[in-house]
Amino acid sequence: MMMMSISNGPFALAHEEGYKLYGFPYSASTWRVLAVLHEKGLSYYPITVNLRTGEQKKPSFLSINPFGQVPVLLDGHLKLTESRAIALYIENSHRSRGPKLLNHKNYNKMGTETMWMYIESFEFDPPATILTFEQAIKPLTGLKTDYKVVNETEPELEKVLDVYEERLKKSRFLARNRFTMADLFHLPNIQYLMNTTTKRLFENRPNVHRWVSEIMARPAWKKACDPNAWYDMKNNNEN
Amino acid sequence: MMMMSISNGPFALAHEEGYKLYGFPYSASTWRVLAVLHEKGLSYYPITVNLRTGEQKKPSFLSINPFGQVPVLLDGHLKLTESRAIALYIENSHRSRGPKLLNHKNYNKMGTETMWMYIESFEFDPPATILTFEQAIKPLTGLKTDYKVVNETEPELEKVLDVYEERLKKSRFLARNRFTMADLFHLPNIQYLMNTTTKRLFENRPNVHRWVSEIMARPAWKKACDPNAWYDMKNNNEN
Repeated sequence: MMMMSISNGPFALAHEEGYKLYGFPYSASTWRVLAVLHEKGLSYYPITVNLRTGEQKKPSFLSINPFGQVPVLLDGHLKLTESRAIALYIENSHRSRGPKLLNHKNYNKMGTETMWMYIESFEFDPPATILTFEQAIKPLTGLKTDYKVVNETEPELEKVLDVYEERLKKSRFLARNRFTMADLFHLPNIQYLMNTTTKRLFENRPNVHRWVSEIMARPAWKKACDPNAWYDMKNNNEN
Repeated sequence: MMMMSISNGPFALAHEEGYKLYGFPYSASTWRVLAVLHEKGLSYYPITVNLRTGEQKKPSFLSINPFGQVPVLLDGHLKLTESRAIALYIENSHRSRGPKLLNHKNYNKMGTETMWMYIESFEFDPPATILTFEQAIKPLTGLKTDYKVVNETEPELEKVLDVYEERLKKSRFLARNRFTMADLFHLPNIQYLMNTTTKRLFENRPNVHRWVSEIMARPAWKKACDPNAWYDMKNNNEN
């Protein structure tokens, strides 16, 4: 293995030592991991898995992640799937680098941050994912949006956003007055939904609107969801 | 407030200092928190929210959790919702007490544990919750099981259990060779599904079957899903 990597040129060792990220630069889940990498100022070696040609369901990729999903992070011998777990691993491993996305010392604060991370997973993500799929992903693949599904799901998202509006009246961000992983976890779905008519549900609520504008404006996020940044990183690693 | 609690008798201070848990002793999510409390040997003051009469959707409870769900944990001024977040908070606050449900020191091990917790949330829980609802919850409330939904959802669960079977060939538990929070998170849905015909999907897979038997046999789990233990705790606190 060492022989091989040496023969791969000057960047081979860097790749072996750094993060390798299987992902797709248009995938919301990939963006979640990229957001943490960019917040922390970490580089990575991108390996493109083309979701539009179904590469994630081919045997060669299923041997890497049997659930057939990106992202997958390789860090030496460690292989991790599930974007939120990867995000937390990167934050845990680089606690003192860049912005603190979690409070690792005060268990009460950590508890509140964890609660808002799980509110994202179990309250926000289910309706947001359906609305993203129907309105943003389906059209990309030539499928028709089912507006019955959209109309049934929007009220579910509204119930969640009503709770967020109350919370964000009192708090600048969801868990605390500073940006945390709980806010970051929401960004991928929000990014897609801002290009659909569901956008109005966020904009109708002044504090949700303020919060969305603030978290979307983070430079790390702009980089995370810019496919050019992914391909630039690939070229930088290879040239 | 102090005056009131003193006038409530000898256990009043203990309640103020200890955990107050809003829950329902037949609720799978409540069981998830109880499992951690019993693993750690911690007492709690149970406050029953009757899900069968819809108490969780009444204004008095919505002021405690606007999502209208149990469990809710009160620890002094801290209020937490989302069963998995509460479970992690209790484990974090009592790291050196009872079995270690997470590795807090080795980030690689923690990463793998976190990954399996999120696999539970995003791969296992969605089909398992639908199957539990259709076959175990609906009949309790006089509604009919929709077998079309059951037949469509079981293959989704089977895909997940196929991955688990491969994993459990090589590992005694999901994340490591010891019981962790990742295993514990699965117990509530499994407990309900073991009383439905979906049970066969677990039993057909020898390593999944072994794993299910081992995690269900834990004394803390037996206590967690026994409604008598909840009411005994209430009586102990009040007499």
